[in-house]
Amino acid sequence: MQLSVIARAKNGFTSKFGIPRQSRETSLIHTRIVFEPEFRDANMLRGLESYSHLWLIWGFSQSQGWSPTVRPPRLGGNTRVGVWATRSPFRPNPIGLTSVRLEAIDHGDLIVTGADLLDGTPIYDIKPYLSFSDSHPDALNGFAESTKDYRLPVVYPDNMPPIDEDTLAQLTEILSQDPRPAYQDDPSREYGLDYAGWSVHFVVHDNVVRVVRCEAPVV
Amino acid sequence: MQLSVIARAKNGFTSKFGIPRQSRETSLIHTRIVFEPEFRDANMLRGLESYSHLWLIWGFSQSQGWSPTVRPPRLGGNTRVGVWATRSPFRPNPIGLTSVRLEAIDHGDLIVTGADLLDGTPIYDIKPYLSFSDSHPDALNGFAESTKDYRLPVVYPDNMPPIDEDTLAQLTEILSQDPRPAYQDDPSREYGLDYAGWSVHFVVHDNVVRVVRCEAPVV
Repeated sequence: MQLSVIARAKNGFTSKFGIPRQSRETSLIHTRIVFEPEFRDANMLRGLESYSHLWLIWGFSQSQGWSPTVRPPRLGGNTRVGVWATRSPFRPNPIGLTSVRLEAIDHGDLIVTGADLLDGTPIYDIKPYLSFSDSHPDALNGFAESTKDYRLPVVYPDNMPPIDEDTLAQLTEILSQDPRPAYQDDPSREYGLDYAGWSVHFVVHDNVVRVVRCEAPVV
Repeated sequence: MQLSVIARAKNGFTSKFGIPRQSRETSLIHTRIVFEPEFRDANMLRGLESYSHLWLIWGFSQSQGWSPTVRPPRLGGNTRVGVWATRSPFRPNPIGLTSVRLEAIDHGDLIVTGADLLDGTPIYDIKPYLSFSDSHPDALNGFAESTKDYRLPVVYPDNMPPIDEDTLAQLTEILSQDPRPAYQDDPSREYGLDYAGWSVHFVVHDNVVRVVRCEAPVV
């Protein structure tokens, strides 16, 4: 099957590094879904406003290739599990699936929260979330269960540049997820992360994320 | 994006007519997911048994074309809503999304229940269901809310051929969903439905499904 891009995600995640590994960890981050010209049609959205949640089916545009087994970052990078047992981007068909909250419909765009999508990500389908068929609150989460509450405290330096409250809360949400690549635990190593134009440098030491430097966007 | 078929569904739904419109209505019906030779690899399944539910991303192989608005069968066929507000097969990229319960892994196949898939349906991706990001029991179901409990009583004739209990329960589950095409309400019209080799003829009158004839599979 050949898929056409129907829309693209637009948000502050301009680099892949730092995108939370689970969508529920991006509840503060707004993503704008901008339809491609061919699919920019108010009729296609009719009735959508009566749903609170949507499914996005999208493409891992930056992932290449796949392997039968994957080492999930949250398992420390040493345990191999089958690719079908993970949400890894490195899968035979690099399709992503994310449930989002529909916040608003704005000039033909959708504004959603909870999207773990890189800026520019191609979207192939949008479906209403139906609680009676899609919600299984008691589902067993396999090995993901033990890692789902992973969250680190985030400490900012005294000399932070002026940053608005929303962006700071979003940054904290991202950093608390420990965006370091798996297999790395070097407390002296400094990481850089770009978000919404900000360039953030941090270290992780004793399970605390310490921001060492934060550079404002060049206006 | 070009998708490769990774597996195919195998079940009793040999004709499209009769497939329930929502997957939760097929809780009794077992579907076997048979991997294509290239993806038939026990390593790819490692760890899957620790999840209770999975996502299937699949293709509406029999749907052709799309339109910006759709008349959902359950709204009586007269109300038009935008295609993104529906799960209609007639969408720009004819991708289906279904959560299923993983019942067993059997000789490299998956046995699942809750799949609203036609026999032979191509499957493009399988993902673990993660309750902490995928489950929103309080999501607002839009216009689907008012129709989600639609179910008709099913009456069988006295002269039913011998049919095993499981198959009969599955048939009842299917018929109770009123598989008539939308827009039709002719109590004298007889419909035929094939399931698991059985050929079932029924009428719908005063909101009761009456089976008038049931022919056993030719062995």
